[in-house]
Amino acid sequence: MRATVLVRPKAGILDPQGHAVERSLRQLGFAVGEARVGRIIDVDVDAATADEARAEVERMCERLLANPLIESYEIELGTS
Amino acid sequence: MRATVLVRPKAGILDPQGHAVERSLRQLGFAVGEARVGRIIDVDVDAATADEARAEVERMCERLLANPLIESYEIELGTS
Repeated sequence: MRATVLVRPKAGILDPQGHAVERSLRQLGFAVGEARVGRIIDVDVDAATADEARAEVERMCERLLANPLIESYEIELGTS
Repeated sequence: MRATVLVRPKAGILDPQGHAVERSLRQLGFAVGEARVGRIIDVDVDAATADEARAEVERMCERLLANPLIESYEIELGTS
């Protein structure tokens, strides 16, 4: 089962990459407000049910994919 | 208007970060197939309509946020 994990810096956490994107967009002439940059991880999980897959991906997030102190994550499950 | 851009390495394009994640997950005991890592960019766009916002964010992708040669992107529009 294909899972997608969206990892974002938590509100209030400094995001230098987001600031750089924001500045560059403005320099290019775009009218933008705040920009924040995170990661997206697509991974094929070996699981029989969606619930099982979600629990497994949650464990992956806690152990490797995200840093829960400074990042929040969302899990989306697809098919295939 | 809040826009979210999902930037992913195109199929067939080498993704060393994805490989590293894949290997690390397996070392931790997770049964996973391929993993791919991309970026997620949340940005507040100054636009009157959703169509206008989408067109503006597409220009941002072509000029800065993605490298269309090796990356694909998806634009999602939220509210606020």
